Amino acid sequence: MAPRDNPGAVTGLGAVVLRDRLASGALRAVEVVEACLARIAEVEPQVQAWAWLEGNHALEQARALDARRVAGRAIGPLHGVPVALKDIIDTKGIPTANGLAVDAGRVPAEDAWIVARLRAAGAIILGKTVTTEGAYMHAGKTCNPHNPAHTPGGSSQGSAAAVAAGMVPLAIGTQTGGSVIRPASYCGVVGVKPSFGMIPRTGILPQSPFLDTVGVFARSVEDAALLIEVLTGHDPADSATEAVPVPRMLAVAQSRVPVTPMFAFLRPPGWEDADPQMRAAVEEVAALLGEQCFETDLPGLGEVAAIRQRINFAEMAKCYYGIERRGRDQMSDVLKAAMDEGKAVLARDYLAALDWRALMNAALDPVFDRCDAILCPAAPGPAPEGLEFTGSAIFNGVWTLAGVPTVTLPLFWSDSGLPMGLQLVGRRGDDARLLRTARWLMAHVETQAEGGASQ
Amino acid sequence: MAPRDNPGAVTGLGAVVLRDRLASGALRAVEVVEACLARIAEVEPQVQAWAWLEGNHALEQARALDARRVAGRAIGPLHGVPVALKDIIDTKGIPTANGLAVDAGRVPAEDAWIVARLRAAGAIILGKTVTTEGAYMHAGKTCNPHNPAHTPGGSSQGSAAAVAAGMVPLAIGTQTGGSVIRPASYCGVVGVKPSFGMIPRTGILPQSPFLDTVGVFARSVEDAALLIEVLTGHDPADSATEAVPVPRMLAVAQSRVPVTPMFAFLRPPGWEDADPQMRAAVEEVAALLGEQCFETDLPGLGEVAAIRQRINFAEMAKCYYGIERRGRDQMSDVLKAAMDEGKAVLARDYLAALDWRALMNAALDPVFDRCDAILCPAAPGPAPEGLEFTGSAIFNGVWTLAGVPTVTLPLFWSDSGLPMGLQLVGRRGDDARLLRTARWLMAHVETQAEGGASQ
Repeated sequence: MAPRDNPGAVTGLGAVVLRDRLASGALRAVEVVEACLARIAEVEPQVQAWAWLEGNHALEQARALDARRVAGRAIGPLHGVPVALKDIIDTKGIPTANGLAVDAGRVPAEDAWIVARLRAAGAIILGKTVTTEGAYMHAGKTCNPHNPAHTPGGSSQGSAAAVAAGMVPLAIGTQTGGSVIRPASYCGVVGVKPSFGMIPRTGILPQSPFLDTVGVFARSVEDAALLIEVLTGHDPADSATEAVPVPRMLAVAQSRVPVTPMFAFLRPPGWEDADPQMRAAVEEVAALLGEQCFETDLPGLGEVAAIRQRINFAEMAKCYYGIERRGRDQMSDVLKAAMDEGKAVLARDYLAALDWRALMNAALDPVFDRCDAILCPAAPGPAPEGLEFTGSAIFNGVWTLAGVPTVTLPLFWSDSGLPMGLQLVGRRGDDARLLRTARWLMAHVETQAEGGASQ
Repeated sequence: MAPRDNPGAVTGLGAVVLRDRLASGALRAVEVVEACLARIAEVEPQVQAWAWLEGNHALEQARALDARRVAGRAIGPLHGVPVALKDIIDTKGIPTANGLAVDAGRVPAEDAWIVARLRAAGAIILGKTVTTEGAYMHAGKTCNPHNPAHTPGGSSQGSAAAVAAGMVPLAIGTQTGGSVIRPASYCGVVGVKPSFGMIPRTGILPQSPFLDTVGVFARSVEDAALLIEVLTGHDPADSATEAVPVPRMLAVAQSRVPVTPMFAFLRPPGWEDADPQMRAAVEEVAALLGEQCFETDLPGLGEVAAIRQRINFAEMAKCYYGIERRGRDQMSDVLKAAMDEGKAVLARDYLAALDWRALMNAALDPVFDRCDAILCPAAPGPAPEGLEFTGSAIFNGVWTLAGVPTVTLPLFWSDSGLPMGLQLVGRRGDDARLLRTARWLMAHVETQAEGGASQ
């Protein structure tokens, strides 16, 4: 069930390699989709990553794309590459239930902005992946591909699990607290939450517009960069996005670092309660980096979790008002409790909380003046046992509030055989540089692990 | 005391004419400032428009600017033109008291963004004008230049009165409800509230960031256009502004209309309670326009005043928290009451109120598809008697919430000899076109008035 258990197969290939082989004609889109569907048939009964999947729908797209390429017409940067979408992302004509009982059978009339962008780029919409209820905490049906008795994390649980299980090379999720980085860490894949405002959210269920961030799951940092570059843009309907040139994510991520990167090792609030295996692993990487890593501290970070939650719940109380009206009795207790807490938040407390983003970035600026990325755990430990609790977002919410880009790298394994991620945090807007740094670190740690401490 | 009572003098000249004469060397900046100071010495004892004014300070700027021009160095678009600033706009080294007792004697360390822009454009900062307390309702000392027993309106009362009394050709104010258009109407000058997000607000006392809008006072539409063009820009510190090219405000405002403009005549909520003289005057203009004007209606507009106030008070409760802490006992009862009302607003009600801007613009779009501007009163009537009540903003707040540009034109006079303004409303972002339309209407009405109905 673990990823890469059949590395020679098409489903073992990364998105960039797939894209290149598809573009050259060495591989047909139909072959890629057939390989994905075969893998899904094999592992989906246990993993349960998909909310909606119809093989023919994906095969039809693949046939059309193959015909297009054979005809010599222009192809997009994701031509023939299958992508999975969290089921809160609207897809025209395809059910999008938002993980909500009241939205069961809902079929959007329009594609989300990013879905239109994906189609234009030649991507294949393979299917919709399981989300927790309304992208909050009540778990969906998905299991961890590495051990079905453990949670895959949440809320983008199906997307993380689908990539981890080799069912699809790329998947999209969203993070309002820790809903991309945490499941990526638990499932052992690369997860990226770009800077707030990079990827338009029009057509994606809004839970907390000040926090909601589109993120991606992939097998490698460069695969993630390829997808992010396609998704980044300006949408006048999403005021968080700006009309600025799209950074060359993939080219920068693939480039050599001009100087050896510097890292800041942070023990964030919650560190003391984290799994000793996780703490030891992160400390080991920091030690491995030697003089390329200094320790840092961010006073006041302890208050951030409550601040972020206040914003999240207040905006959720407003955004999910219509959902509640249509069926409060169909909402989980945990969602109802969050809504009720959000309803009681005062506007001035909410507004004061919003100021923290600017304050946090002002505090982070001098740290990023001295380093390329902050190192910290992606989650408190490996995926917890059981499917109901999707795990703690304590190491993620602070960065979501700050709006800074973060990456989790699947570098560690627990004694129980479950993956754990190392989180890298970059300066807001410096996403491409963070991905380049992450790719360097991934290679550096792997080289050191192979070569031993003498290297 | 009325404006233009000495049209041959320098103080009778508009900003564009002044700017041209200064640029050509026909007039020196020192002469302009001396003329302004003479006029101020004459009328200020009665009008009381200034919160801070030192003749030498302005003369020093003028001398430096004259020397610069004589030396043949490049000059800016407002070279030598005096400008007055509402006393909530920070000026480095010059007292800025925000109309607040707790800020008496406060001297900012930095210029506001627009002040730096003005200095770079060669404008002369003539002085700071009286504001109501914290730009809210408690009146300052200023009287209406047309009748000192009447209010000049608020909150930008000193700026409106200073331009109206011929003390300065240009002044800057802010509008959160109706604080530019209303005093401009009461004082008989052109007032413009540009689209929300056009002019950066960094360094200006924030009262309600979702609503606060910088506006201008001038003798003519083209003078206002000149000033707005200088003030418009992108400031990364004010997220309401965008990195887009600055429209050519003055050139467009001065250009001929390509086709005869079309107007929509709106009787907004409050119309029935407005002064019959104002209603008759606006109806007369609508009738004069004949087939160039159609009547329109905007259902739901009646709720907007309460929605706007909810946002205003909630944000004021947050923004003025520090002011309250430093001296609640020094705040007026009317400000304390607004603060207390704002403190009780729930975040979800506040957030729901924010949606009205998009809803209103969606409702306005089909109207603006059929016309160049909406016509409606700028205020319920002439300036009320007494200085305490600064008048009703009922015809202004809706447009502030919508974020659309509005202009008031000093076209009407009441039987009591007080001016009344006609308000024109444009599509959000189409400020230059609105100014061109306003200039056309001003000329058209004046021509018709001179030529009689047979024209």
